[in-house]
Amino acid sequence: MKAVKKKRVKETRLTIPDLVILSLLAEGPMHGYEVNATLENRNIRDWAPVSRPQVYYSLGKLTELGLLRVSSSDSPSAGPERRVLETTALGREHLADALEAKSWVNKKVHQPFLIWLALSWQARPRTFRKQLNSRKKILEQRLREERATLEDVLTEVGHPFHEAVWMLELTVEQLQAELRWVEKILKSAAKRGPALHASKKKSGRG
Amino acid sequence: MKAVKKKRVKETRLTIPDLVILSLLAEGPMHGYEVNATLENRNIRDWAPVSRPQVYYSLGKLTELGLLRVSSSDSPSAGPERRVLETTALGREHLADALEAKSWVNKKVHQPFLIWLALSWQARPRTFRKQLNSRKKILEQRLREERATLEDVLTEVGHPFHEAVWMLELTVEQLQAELRWVEKILKSAAKRGPALHASKKKSGRG
Repeated sequence: MKAVKKKRVKETRLTIPDLVILSLLAEGPMHGYEVNATLENRNIRDWAPVSRPQVYYSLGKLTELGLLRVSSSDSPSAGPERRVLETTALGREHLADALEAKSWVNKKVHQPFLIWLALSWQARPRTFRKQLNSRKKILEQRLREERATLEDVLTEVGHPFHEAVWMLELTVEQLQAELRWVEKILKSAAKRGPALHASKKKSGRG
Repeated sequence: MKAVKKKRVKETRLTIPDLVILSLLAEGPMHGYEVNATLENRNIRDWAPVSRPQVYYSLGKLTELGLLRVSSSDSPSAGPERRVLETTALGREHLADALEAKSWVNKKVHQPFLIWLALSWQARPRTFRKQLNSRKKILEQRLREERATLEDVLTEVGHPFHEAVWMLELTVEQLQAELRWVEKILKSAAKRGPALHASKKKSGRG
């Protein structure tokens, strides 16, 4: 029976929402509606794409695959939101398998702001500075928020050797690096000019 | 006639591949097959998601909308790859409109490596260090590549006040920030531990 289930799981790709839910319900049993509330309260949607409809879809799919199990329910015919679910041993095993994948470390991410920058020579003259200033404000605000969260999490966790602390530290470093860069570009934006040697070989518009 | 076309364009969402192509063909007329070759040669796919099938789809769509125009073709019945296309005035206008959008500066990006980090407490013990080491190697290699490209582009452009230079400078800053962070985490990975005060209120697993 277990062998049959494992085979079915191998054929089913686990998505990021699936893995987030397996991890969350590995901490302890939870009602389906609590899963959504916890995703909100812990700001998990800041770092992972897990929409509300995806949660209910995943809960059903993972239960069917034997990666989650119903530990109790409000009534025998209750839907996923009214059942208490928890991650099974098989679920933990598949989550651990998924975390070995190379794609977590080598997948390139396309950044909308970098795409905009590449195309920005076709923007209207005032737009360039306006968008850079908006970006600066957004980075400053996120930096304030992430630093405040980092302080809270440090207090709560009680030591700095924890993945929630590490995630926030990386986020703060990235925001700081980009903010320094935006400030530099804003200072030199007026000197902007086309390439002196036209070529179509390199990145950007050359 | 122009008013009718503009209305149709307003109703059609321009995708990132559409905008990249409008920008490229605003530099000068090009054969459809040259568009694909240029996307390769300039490593445009490093920063923008533009697949080969999307290119031909976009060329057709943008021509139909009047944002591209056929400036010549190898034969009267030639398909998009054998026609020379260029961006029209209307195309430049719509590209400039699209570059005003707020979403370029405020859209959050989900980073696979950060998602992995959040879930990593469920990874097998050796996987954590192994994945961090892989990430370190990838960051070091990308840093070497981007620095080499930056030098080439600086030589080619002839001055540092150009979006291709700025993009590469930001990429280098981001890679450096993450590399410093990975090196720090590798040093303290052995001290990793669970939260001392369990709570379900904050980001990460709390």
